[in-house]
Amino acid sequence: MTWAYKTPGIPDELFERLPGIPLTKKEVRLLILSGLRLEEKSVIWDIGAGTGTISIEIALLCPKTTIIAIERDPDVANLIKKNCQRFGIKNIQVIEGNAPDCFNNITQKPDRVCIGGGKSVKEILEQVWDLLPAQGRVVAMASNLENLYRISEGLSQLQARNIEVVQSSINRLEMRGLSQVFAAIAPIFILSGEKIND
Amino acid sequence: MTWAYKTPGIPDELFERLPGIPLTKKEVRLLILSGLRLEEKSVIWDIGAGTGTISIEIALLCPKTTIIAIERDPDVANLIKKNCQRFGIKNIQVIEGNAPDCFNNITQKPDRVCIGGGKSVKEILEQVWDLLPAQGRVVAMASNLENLYRISEGLSQLQARNIEVVQSSINRLEMRGLSQVFAAIAPIFILSGEKIND
Amino acid sequence: MTWAYKTPGIPDELFERLPGIPLTKKEVRLLILSGLRLEEKSVIWDIGAGTGTISIEIALLCPKTTIIAIERDPDVANLIKKNCQRFGIKNIQVIEGNAPDCFNNITQKPDRVCIGGGKSVKEILEQVWDLLPAQGRVVAMASNLENLYRISEGLSQLQARNIEVVQSSINRLEMRGLSQVFAAIAPIFILSGEKIND
Amino acid sequence: MTWAYKTPGIPDELFERLPGIPLTKKEVRLLILSGLRLEEKSVIWDIGAGTGTISIEIALLCPKTTIIAIERDPDVANLIKKNCQRFGIKNIQVIEGNAPDCFNNITQKPDRVCIGGGKSVKEILEQVWDLLPAQGRVVAMASNLENLYRISEGLSQLQARNIEVVQSSINRLEMRGLSQVFAAIAPIFILSGEKIND
Repeated sequence: MTWAYKTPGIPDELFERLPGIPLTKKEVRLLILSGLRLEEKSVIWDIGAGTGTISIEIALLCPKTTIIAIERDPDVANLIKKNCQRFGIKNIQVIEGNAPDCFNNITQKPDRVCIGGGKSVKEILEQVWDLLPAQGRVVAMASNLENLYRISEGLSQLQARNIEVVQSSINRLEMRGLSQVFAAIAPIFILSGEKIND
Repeated sequence: MTWAYKTPGIPDELFERLPGIPLTKKEVRLLILSGLRLEEKSVIWDIGAGTGTISIEIALLCPKTTIIAIERDPDVANLIKKNCQRFGIKNIQVIEGNAPDCFNNITQKPDRVCIGGGKSVKEILEQVWDLLPAQGRVVAMASNLENLYRISEGLSQLQARNIEVVQSSINRLEMRGLSQVFAAIAPIFILSGEKIND
Repeated sequence: MTWAYKTPGIPDELFERLPGIPLTKKEVRLLILSGLRLEEKSVIWDIGAGTGTISIEIALLCPKTTIIAIERDPDVANLIKKNCQRFGIKNIQVIEGNAPDCFNNITQKPDRVCIGGGKSVKEILEQVWDLLPAQGRVVAMASNLENLYRISEGLSQLQARNIEVVQSSINRLEMRGLSQVFAAIAPIFILSGEKIND
Repeated sequence: MTWAYKTPGIPDELFERLPGIPLTKKEVRLLILSGLRLEEKSVIWDIGAGTGTISIEIALLCPKTTIIAIERDPDVANLIKKNCQRFGIKNIQVIEGNAPDCFNNITQKPDRVCIGGGKSVKEILEQVWDLLPAQGRVVAMASNLENLYRISEGLSQLQARNIEVVQSSINRLEMRGLSQVFAAIAPIFILSGEKIND
């Protein structure tokens, strides 16, 4: 078994990768999973799933949960499937499609949504909000100022409850030769909010 | 139930507190739990347990695990017990005593150890290392330069495997009036390592 | 002479302070001064001057420059004057008034402007932009998300050139007893831009 | 004139570079210059001068000062000379040699010393300390844990006064396409201290 532990935080290098395809770093993943506040059995949408790291951590933490991993690039969608095989995961469905256009084709409505970014982040946020039940939650990442503001404004306009914004600016000590060099992980904002009424 | 979610990251304000007693912030806790790589059923020592936040997250993630929370201050030891009650937890044993002196009195040897800090951090590290089985892990926190170096040097001398050092310098956006102000969480180093041979 | 050096970076504790009145930390001041790109002889407006630390650093670096320190609170305006005395400075004029209302009363138009923050930051930015000559520069601080966005959007709409945004998240090692503890300075954004045409 | 401003903080891209040769980023340079506390006329040693950015900022701020830029690699020493030409600077002497071996060949003793790093950082620190006058200052950079500890310990053993340690972990917003992406500058520690007695 590739990852047999009960805690999230799979090392980045355990995932299969494609050149140029971003991977959500371990330390950022931990903040996202925490923001999702997962329940034992539910439906999670991972929009812009990329390498699939978040979907896979969720699948391992909550084996009874169904994860819908949405990814528009066919090669990247295939990469997620390979990573599912590598980690022995069966509760992830990979959907190849553009968000938010593909939402109508997904029959299982989400209890939690993770939004990876992209230009249409606010439109995506608004559409998934309608699909969420009460106490449903959204977590979204912003690596640029525009999305930080769009998501922040979106959550506010949707009257999300318990809005949280954290900026992860984590440094790792990396071995270079015999020295442990301080290296920065790209700073990223993680925003989360909860729906009050259905 | 105070915290019904399958993911770690209990909000800081859900814990009962004592003035002046430090609480490991949520974002730092996530990094510590990840560094511990918990298994379903094992024995965890939480040395310098303080408010008990790490012990309680472990207890909820791994209900079959036994957590030994070691704390020298009687009032703080009592605070941990109160937080156990608040979160409905039964698998934490609170031990009032000084580390490493009290180690001889603890019959259950650890599979994982979390070290909160303090001046005798290196002595503690060396003593628990002897008690660890192969593949056992230690995670230690350093909030000052001296301990960063002591722990780093200690893990190296003990020939720990997969040593990782991360510095958490996370910012939170906090509501102050109508503004979301950027606020820093005190930067802290989290070091972890694994034992190769028994 | 309180500060005889040719480099900026006066230690925070050398300034006289008033309780509750913010002081721009040394490390943040360095970034602001750099963003201003000061010339030997010019007119600088320091809007929301607070304790006066930026005005005083400018006055020492550029003795032939005139600094207009604008501050609405009479007690704080008085604090700036005291700090001018302490550092032996004669090229700072303290103006007690509300920005941007008081701008009409100031006869000397600015070559450089430093904006400390506040709710009307965008209005202030737009008004000073009109007063600036070509190659004039504005540096503004944002400690909250709203102002970060307002200033960023404002500089963009005014078609400022060479826009720079840096986030200072500096940690200091502070002696606490015998330990050197890592402590964070509140993260702050510093935005700067240059006017192309008059 | 390449840089006509009275404030330090020359943009990184104004310097001529060599592939693989590190350049001290603008934001880090500001902290180093501030730690040096330069006087109008003095002798500065810049040990491990690299691209020469620190020497050049000093030369522009203090035209009456003599800067000795020490660099062991002949190509890099030549790069410093080219940058001197580019910025029209005449008060920098480039010395090609290994520190601390070459110190005996330098006739002008330093009032201030900047140490760029390297394995022999502690030996360098101890030797220049002997050469410094009372109130002389040393600023040293550490990009790895070993040097952070070596310099910290060295300054302490030499009984330096006013020891300061700051960690610069600055983020820049960089334009990528139409987005302003948060990017981290490699975190670096800057340590400084002052000599009490000659």
